[in-house]
Amino acid sequence: MPIVRVEMWPGRTEAQKAELARVITDAVVTIAHTTPEATFVIFEDIAKENWAQGGVLASQKKEKK
Amino acid sequence: MPIVRVEMWPGRTEAQKAELARVITDAVVTIAHTTPEATFVIFEDIAKENWAQGGVLASQKKEKK
Amino acid sequence: MPIVRVEMWPGRTEAQKAELARVITDAVVTIAHTTPEATFVIFEDIAKENWAQGGVLASQKKEKK
Amino acid sequence: MPIVRVEMWPGRTEAQKAELARVITDAVVTIAHTTPEATFVIFEDIAKENWAQGGVLASQKKEKK
Amino acid sequence: MPIVRVEMWPGRTEAQKAELARVITDAVVTIAHTTPEATFVIFEDIAKENWAQGGVLASQKKEKK
Amino acid sequence: MPIVRVEMWPGRTEAQKAELARVITDAVVTIAHTTPEATFVIFEDIAKENWAQGGVLASQKKEKK
Repeated sequence: MPIVRVEMWPGRTEAQKAELARVITDAVVTIAHTTPEATFVIFEDIAKENWAQGGVLASQKKEKK
Repeated sequence: MPIVRVEMWPGRTEAQKAELARVITDAVVTIAHTTPEATFVIFEDIAKENWAQGGVLASQKKEKK
Repeated sequence: MPIVRVEMWPGRTEAQKAELARVITDAVVTIAHTTPEATFVIFEDIAKENWAQGGVLASQKKEKK
Repeated sequence: MPIVRVEMWPGRTEAQKAELARVITDAVVTIAHTTPEATFVIFEDIAKENWAQGGVLASQKKEKK
Repeated sequence: MPIVRVEMWPGRTEAQKAELARVITDAVVTIAHTTPEATFVIFEDIAKENWAQGGVLASQKKEKK
Repeated sequence: MPIVRVEMWPGRTEAQKAELARVITDAVVTIAHTTPEATFVIFEDIAKENWAQGGVLASQKKEKK
């Protein structure tokens, strides 16, 4: 029943999410010994004005990554 | 203080969410012995391109449910 | 694919969780038009010293519910 | 590594979120003895039709706060 | 209805959590214009063997903070 | 800033979590174009009596995976 949740800034394409879902699922199945059907991957886009490090919103500082 | 969080694909109407909130709250109050005022239900819509099972995005396979 | 997450204070028995899972799943299936197999319910116990309302930990005030 | 997640109804400005991120980070650094760089704050807006108390969606009752 | 969730490594005392809950609630009430009673703070301890940065579990590298 | 959260049943060793963290981080860095330092992986063990599919707790049915 692994549920994997990936929070990232917006901007990744559906193709990137599809590849991430595939690779992460493979890793979970292989390493944690489960089945693909029992493995879920959920993506959540977090806008930069909704995410802060060091007390500063990502929308208000120099982008680093 | 029960907090119930429901993640579903988009497409449910506000009426469906209202009914779900009512029925889930009743269940929690009755079975877990709390009060309605202390019970919260939060809905989150997860787009199909943000949700994968078996390593495949729901937006890229045959819909099943 | 509904995923329902229920956060409560500790103290509910496995029997209460089993009944909650059954009733919540029925509600989701009926109202949101999905299948039981696609519906997941996850419980998380939150200790009272890890939960505050009004700025006061539940472990440090009069219990209300 | 503290990760702080703030769920609120929509309507707060980016300036309010920036101030909240700053003040919460200061509190976590000071009280929990970590560093600003290791402290993250994430905001999630929850629409009123996605949030219920007492079994009633916030979008369907008198606003209280 | 703000719900604030704080994930940290274990080791903070109940007194630290109590102070954090109080200060964070004050900040949310003042900055986001809500009431103390409507503001919840939930703490979750994440063990170091359950938390990785840079692909390395915190339990397996030099502690930094 | 990707934050990856992996919920699984208990029973995986720290070595399995370490390998999962490494492989998932590699995948996120490569596919989503971020840095290892900005990528976090958090594991949460969900006991079988806290997890239901089809309205039945995993602790109360035949194990399948």
